[in-house]
Amino acid sequence: MDRTIDFWFDFSSPYSYIASEWIGALAARHGRRVSWHAILLGVTFQAAELKSPVSHPLKREYSLRDFPRSARYEGLPYRMPPVFPIPTQNAARVFWWLHDTRGAEAAEAWAHAGLRAVFTRGVVLSEAPALRALAAEQGLDADACERVWNDPRWKARLKRANDEAIAAGVFGAPFFVVDGEPFWGNDRRPQIERWLASGPF
Amino acid sequence: MDRTIDFWFDFSSPYSYIASEWIGALAARHGRRVSWHAILLGVTFQAAELKSPVSHPLKREYSLRDFPRSARYEGLPYRMPPVFPIPTQNAARVFWWLHDTRGAEAAEAWAHAGLRAVFTRGVVLSEAPALRALAAEQGLDADACERVWNDPRWKARLKRANDEAIAAGVFGAPFFVVDGEPFWGNDRRPQIERWLASGPF
Repeated sequence: MDRTIDFWFDFSSPYSYIASEWIGALAARHGRRVSWHAILLGVTFQAAELKSPVSHPLKREYSLRDFPRSARYEGLPYRMPPVFPIPTQNAARVFWWLHDTRGAEAAEAWAHAGLRAVFTRGVVLSEAPALRALAAEQGLDADACERVWNDPRWKARLKRANDEAIAAGVFGAPFFVVDGEPFWGNDRRPQIERWLASGPF
Repeated sequence: MDRTIDFWFDFSSPYSYIASEWIGALAARHGRRVSWHAILLGVTFQAAELKSPVSHPLKREYSLRDFPRSARYEGLPYRMPPVFPIPTQNAARVFWWLHDTRGAEAAEAWAHAGLRAVFTRGVVLSEAPALRALAAEQGLDADACERVWNDPRWKARLKRANDEAIAAGVFGAPFFVVDGEPFWGNDRRPQIERWLASGPF
């Protein structure tokens, strides 16, 4: 059986940021590896006929309160980005380029850097100069990264990741599949923990 | 400060059923009382421009898997009702009639009976004979209950409860307010537990 945990995230998803900070350690405690998948939440929302929580009256106010509270609950720093949500296709294309050319670890490091930049430093990753600066900070060639995010090959790669997510039933982020079992949301952490500790329930 | 925990639920909400089984004991452990509010989720959905999770492609399949799993996680019996979701205004009107004429405890007992009937025995509470039978089982006068749910006075009482819920920011169920802080969803249990144990975080 495949013991890898699949983890889908979007660089502009607060709950993905929070989950990205615990999934690695949790998986390691149970001898599991994590396969990270950068996707565009907007594409999965469209497939499921959903919208961002902040697009809904009442739910918007709640969500803006719950994002930082859920981060505090996990003991994580959190700062609401000045622009939210943002289109994240460029950051995601760089993720898949790193994944396919340098390996999963390089991609995961970029994911952490991007999510932390957005949700602890208010970096607006949708703006090219900000994304170039982040790339440089991470020791990447900013020009190469910009070529990547404009390259039809890496655009197609991200599209494939989105299509695969939808085929796997993903309609939001963070989304996890453990032993074929789907878990949606940062708040499914307790159920994932029980599953990993003692199997299906 | 008002130490009462407000708890909004709908008789056709799986996650409300699950939360209804733990909120009382949790509150009691922390010296709190619970104020139960029967509402129509459809009305709050409309206010927030939301739909039932089972109305969405992809999310529907996930939700039908997550409802029973979330019940099992809490160690609760669960059976998916044969008709879902169902209109629950009649059961909710009986709730408010009991609340206003016999007190909060009688209303809470009715809430438990209704939620358990729907989610452990597959009782379709939207059908008058089923609701009458449940009332009789609970020692209530079925004719009186049927008069209540057809009475403009109790229709107005439920409408007021829905309006008050929306005014309080409620857009889904279960929904809780503790010390002025809103928590949405059965999965906010860990945050509510921390709040009750050690205060705001």
